[in-house]
Amino acid sequence: MEQQEEVPPPPAGLGLTAEEYAQVRATVEAHHRYAVGPGQCSSLLAQRIHAPPAAVWAVVRRFDCPQVYKHFIRSCVLRPDPHHDDNGNDLRPGRLREVSVISGLPASTSTERLDLLDDAHRVFGFTITGGEHRLRNYRSVTTVSQLDEICTLVLESYIVDVPDGNTEDDTRLFADTVIRLNLQKLKSVSEANANAAAAAAAPPPPPPAAAE
Amino acid sequence: MEQQEEVPPPPAGLGLTAEEYAQVRATVEAHHRYAVGPGQCSSLLAQRIHAPPAAVWAVVRRFDCPQVYKHFIRSCVLRPDPHHDDNGNDLRPGRLREVSVISGLPASTSTERLDLLDDAHRVFGFTITGGEHRLRNYRSVTTVSQLDEICTLVLESYIVDVPDGNTEDDTRLFADTVIRLNLQKLKSVSEANANAAAAAAAPPPPPPAAAE
Repeated sequence: MEQQEEVPPPPAGLGLTAEEYAQVRATVEAHHRYAVGPGQCSSLLAQRIHAPPAAVWAVVRRFDCPQVYKHFIRSCVLRPDPHHDDNGNDLRPGRLREVSVISGLPASTSTERLDLLDDAHRVFGFTITGGEHRLRNYRSVTTVSQLDEICTLVLESYIVDVPDGNTEDDTRLFADTVIRLNLQKLKSVSEANANAAAAAAAPPPPPPAAAE
Repeated sequence: MEQQEEVPPPPAGLGLTAEEYAQVRATVEAHHRYAVGPGQCSSLLAQRIHAPPAAVWAVVRRFDCPQVYKHFIRSCVLRPDPHHDDNGNDLRPGRLREVSVISGLPASTSTERLDLLDDAHRVFGFTITGGEHRLRNYRSVTTVSQLDEICTLVLESYIVDVPDGNTEDDTRLFADTVIRLNLQKLKSVSEANANAAAAAAAPPPPPPAAAE
């Protein structure tokens, strides 16, 4: 009898069934693994969304306006593209954005670089390269995968230095809380967009029957 | 003809209709008005919840465990009650709690005093009296009111000093974001509790009819 390949259990706390995890394991192995060095920590979070992957990806890929689904962002400006004088808004890896963040007080700034924007496989990655905050060497990857006909799965992972005076738990607890809140907002934004698109595409109701 | 009393429009951004606001105006006037001095700011937020007021109030009134519905809280300890040696957990105005907050890094602490716990009118108030953070003289009131048979309205307001180096907008934007996220969590926790209570109270399904 052919030996069934043993399905490894999903990472604890991810909230996925073994079957769901088996569907996205290749994506996790390819995009959400980090070589975590001393003084660093990393984490992986999952969010189910009842909207087509394309509707979710349309929001995630917008490196130029993260505030559409991220809390605590006051503004975001895309730095002019040194390689193109048309100042186009095309999003190519290497582009930089200046984000004004309101988490904690006073508001801090964050300079972030687009690492990866793979429209075919729906993989998005960025790194925080500077700014006034304490999240040194923060690098993150977000992937959007189809789970079944109605459910899309977003996975977001990161690696970051643990700031002086902090524990690994503190750092992960803070970052995980903010990401989980952002993924919940991504869910409501994407589902609202998908419902609006479906309503717009629906044929108009038949005219009322003429009174006899 | 009797002159209809003009219903003042609700404060902008509260998200209430004029009719809804008319229902809670007395509560707003009684509990959510502040004498805002120079260098201070205040705000009022509303959250509709589809659960009975009692189910919502049961969560809000728990001064001893705010983490049930508030994000960014790592732990909360009620200080022993100097007036009672039984170290009872009864919540009387004047009691103090030590909250460990994970917002921003490193984690900060907050010492908070219970100002008001009115079970009859469902009014809760506390003040931040100390701790490592920048929200000086933060005072807040939360009220729970019935809007109609299925909808409860929670109003949360606060007054706080605007920290040096910050604008009023920054301060309000940060505090409003955190409170809005907490009120959304209060909604999901209260609705889940109410559904669970309703399910537990429902009569058991009739036994399957005996096979003929």
